[in-house]
Amino acid sequence: MRTSIHLQTSPPHLFSPPLASPSLNQDSQKLLCAQHAASLVKPSTILGLGTGSTASLFLEQLSDLLSAGSLHSIVGVPTSLKTDALAKTLNIPLTDLGSHPVLDLSVDGADEVDQELNLVKGRGGSLLREKMVEGASREFVVIVDETKLVPRLGTTGPIPVEVVPFGWDYTIMKLKELFKGEIGFDAKLRTVWDAKEGKEVPFKTDNENYIVNLLFEKGISGDLRLISDEILRITGVIEHGIFIGMATSVIVAKKDGKIEILNKK
Amino acid sequence: MRTSIHLQTSPPHLFSPPLASPSLNQDSQKLLCAQHAASLVKPSTILGLGTGSTASLFLEQLSDLLSAGSLHSIVGVPTSLKTDALAKTLNIPLTDLGSHPVLDLSVDGADEVDQELNLVKGRGGSLLREKMVEGASREFVVIVDETKLVPRLGTTGPIPVEVVPFGWDYTIMKLKELFKGEIGFDAKLRTVWDAKEGKEVPFKTDNENYIVNLLFEKGISGDLRLISDEILRITGVIEHGIFIGMATSVIVAKKDGKIEILNKK
Repeated sequence: MRTSIHLQTSPPHLFSPPLASPSLNQDSQKLLCAQHAASLVKPSTILGLGTGSTASLFLEQLSDLLSAGSLHSIVGVPTSLKTDALAKTLNIPLTDLGSHPVLDLSVDGADEVDQELNLVKGRGGSLLREKMVEGASREFVVIVDETKLVPRLGTTGPIPVEVVPFGWDYTIMKLKELFKGEIGFDAKLRTVWDAKEGKEVPFKTDNENYIVNLLFEKGISGDLRLISDEILRITGVIEHGIFIGMATSVIVAKKDGKIEILNKK
Repeated sequence: MRTSIHLQTSPPHLFSPPLASPSLNQDSQKLLCAQHAASLVKPSTILGLGTGSTASLFLEQLSDLLSAGSLHSIVGVPTSLKTDALAKTLNIPLTDLGSHPVLDLSVDGADEVDQELNLVKGRGGSLLREKMVEGASREFVVIVDETKLVPRLGTTGPIPVEVVPFGWDYTIMKLKELFKGEIGFDAKLRTVWDAKEGKEVPFKTDNENYIVNLLFEKGISGDLRLISDEILRITGVIEHGIFIGMATSVIVAKKDGKIEILNKK
């Protein structure tokens, strides 16, 4: 189901789309959907807090609503150490999954959204905690700008896989074997520049694991649930960034200043 | 296929089974199958080295053969930090999976072996590295005393699952949900006594993860491959200790001093 909403209430100090042909840049689009999502949060919500640039904007909006007194009694479960720290500076009260194993709502960005609302997440490196927290939520609202809508997952960038550091090169070999039928497929360890060491070193997740990026020339093809099982069966794999059937709705902010809501069928 | 071998060559200084009704204790049985497995190792083998009491005996036997000059040019891939350390003290040359992604043979103990040669492993805590190394081996020989043979996995003790520390209590909840149909089922975090802290603390694997013990009153029932997929789909789960169809043969040492070889069908 698609609903189109023209966001009348967008604060004029943030952006002023011209009447004739409004064209929001990507940051303004992110803000637009973050605002809309924050407006959906009810008092006393146990709330999963996403990670990434759009999710951070959502946290700021949430903080504003709390300070203004128009929202109260919410408590958040952060999906990363980064979000944990940000929430603390924004005075958003926090809890954890152990205390609240069932959440009312999670709000997070995504790297890609397909037509069935399946997602690619984790290019920021927090896929495991995101999947756990968002999987524990009754409702999972995804906030994206329209560049994130894709016909097929894996078309605009890699699909990340969190792996155990031990034997990571062996795990990459197994992932390459699994996708050997996909033309132009590659699997690469995600690295970051270490200024101290003067070289690229493996990127480490919050759980001290590595990320392997799966690169598809034309996106991933086939039954996603079967592919998911096949990836998870590889011994060194912990979790992957394909989120199947988890999003209950997706708030898409568009260049023209409109918001489109995609709901799970 | 079952083959029965009476081990004529068992060193008399280790045990001397009386002719009429020999009865070996468990330690002697472990040594018996370790000796037999060591006798199967050919020169120039790339060899996966298991973890645990029986695997340690195998390493000692291997070391003796190397020192005596009756075996040479082997190189081992250890399945734990403990085995790595032991192999070093025993002067067994070592390598890793990255350098040798395909191994000729692995030899390891098991906690349980069922009639299809499916195993429970990892009560010692090294299931992930064991599964990776042994899964990379062309041949995987399991060495056990006869107490390890069970009609159904999970009857003599827990089935261990390696989980991410983040959200471990949530992961336990999900595991309990999965097995809620099994009468008397329980899932418990594995702990160890910390003398410094004066309390029980979570046991940590070589990969700095936790272990959750799955406890079945009458063993695990159902299709093991389906159950495996269901366990692996839980977000916080990294790997479990059920090894399905991996063992190529099992060397069973018996109380009466005989050895029975069970081969994969």
